[in-house]
Amino acid sequence: MPRNFKAILAYDGSPFSGWQIQPGRTTIQGKFAGVIKRITGEQMLPQGSGRTDAGVHALAQVASFTLESPIPVANLHTALNDKLPESIRVMALEEVPLEFHARHSAKAKTYQYRVYRSAICPPFMPNYVAHVPWPLDASGMQRAASIVVGKHDFTSFTATDPEKTARDNKERFSMNDNVRTIYSSAWESRGEELIYTVRGNGFLHHMVRNLVGTMLLVGKGTNTPADVERILAAKNRSQTGPTAAANGLYLVSVEY
Amino acid sequence: MPRNFKAILAYDGSPFSGWQIQPGRTTIQGKFAGVIKRITGEQMLPQGSGRTDAGVHALAQVASFTLESPIPVANLHTALNDKLPESIRVMALEEVPLEFHARHSAKAKTYQYRVYRSAICPPFMPNYVAHVPWPLDASGMQRAASIVVGKHDFTSFTATDPEKTARDNKERFSMNDNVRTIYSSAWESRGEELIYTVRGNGFLHHMVRNLVGTMLLVGKGTNTPADVERILAAKNRSQTGPTAAANGLYLVSVEY
Repeated sequence: MPRNFKAILAYDGSPFSGWQIQPGRTTIQGKFAGVIKRITGEQMLPQGSGRTDAGVHALAQVASFTLESPIPVANLHTALNDKLPESIRVMALEEVPLEFHARHSAKAKTYQYRVYRSAICPPFMPNYVAHVPWPLDASGMQRAASIVVGKHDFTSFTATDPEKTARDNKERFSMNDNVRTIYSSAWESRGEELIYTVRGNGFLHHMVRNLVGTMLLVGKGTNTPADVERILAAKNRSQTGPTAAANGLYLVSVEY
Repeated sequence: MPRNFKAILAYDGSPFSGWQIQPGRTTIQGKFAGVIKRITGEQMLPQGSGRTDAGVHALAQVASFTLESPIPVANLHTALNDKLPESIRVMALEEVPLEFHARHSAKAKTYQYRVYRSAICPPFMPNYVAHVPWPLDASGMQRAASIVVGKHDFTSFTATDPEKTARDNKERFSMNDNVRTIYSSAWESRGEELIYTVRGNGFLHHMVRNLVGTMLLVGKGTNTPADVERILAAKNRSQTGPTAAANGLYLVSVEY
């Protein structure tokens, strides 16, 4: 009888080519699978709640995997953190019922995006924020953020590669459309930063970064909140803002 | 008539082999000199308030340098931040009287040392804190910290390489002894961290890191505050604790 595990992972995305295992690349999933193999001798692929792109960080990515090994949970937890690079940490590990699957069982996810506003970006932060030193209309951005709350077709905000998007959708949600429900979407000011927090039942590839890129154009005055409404309704990428840089994005939590 | 400049630099020490220029190594002084040359065509060596070792960070290192170029200060400031790596930032730049020298004119310096205490060090922090996951007696460490306040011979807490130390002393303070005056020395608790802040008229090579290493032995219970008093009085390195890791140390400010 295999045992099923749920791991909560935090990682600094900077040194990795994203979550998903790829030949010849250093990825979080690849490192995690390799370390589990070293500890238990078992070859398996831990399933994440979803992919994160190269440079994207996680405060609490969730991964599930099954093992035959009788290793006690606490020992496995310690061994994982001993052998993983310091830029990946297992914050929590527990044994869960066999039917739990990090991706299929996910009910909601929360992402944050950090924008640093001062003229000079501190030397410790370039990998962890998007630096936007020009004036931003935060109240316009807030109005734009509220527009996406609710159930919408987010085709306008998904990645331009349709094959990849279709594949992602199928893998992630077993559905072929781009409809997602956003429960909350808001900017807050914290010191020198503007931080966007968005919680929804699922996110398309590049969706948060495309939303942020479009809202930053509102902040800059290039677009209005009404433009965002129009772009959302258009269901095509042609007028969406640029994809915001990966390094400002954090997967904050996954709910089950 | 040359113009004299004072720059306040912040840097992430992680990717550098310390402040001081060295052939074949990437150093902060080397990068800074190279960028000034690219902007103005002038070859000169910016003088820091003191060296920082490989991995040590600065919130406000001070460097001075002279130029013949008539470039306006604001333009030079912008050009420096455009051309320097993101891990080095010029936070402020001003023209100062010719007699100002970042090292010779320094009256006091403040360093901080960050110790992260929780069992799991977040993946974003390994380069920026020392991770000490065992229980620490913070009040014992505080008593030890207060012992070094005042004018003392810090031979017990300097680097073991006597040639290097003598050279540093001569360069930094034009004196051949190890007497320094510490104005304040204290630990404070901030979230999961214990932070040591020390302000003095000067510091020997490795002095802050050796003080921290010795105080951490008090925190661990291996030494008592009375041992620190004895070690200070002994004026030799034989019983001093290990040199604490470079990555927890920050040069916070230099006073003139």
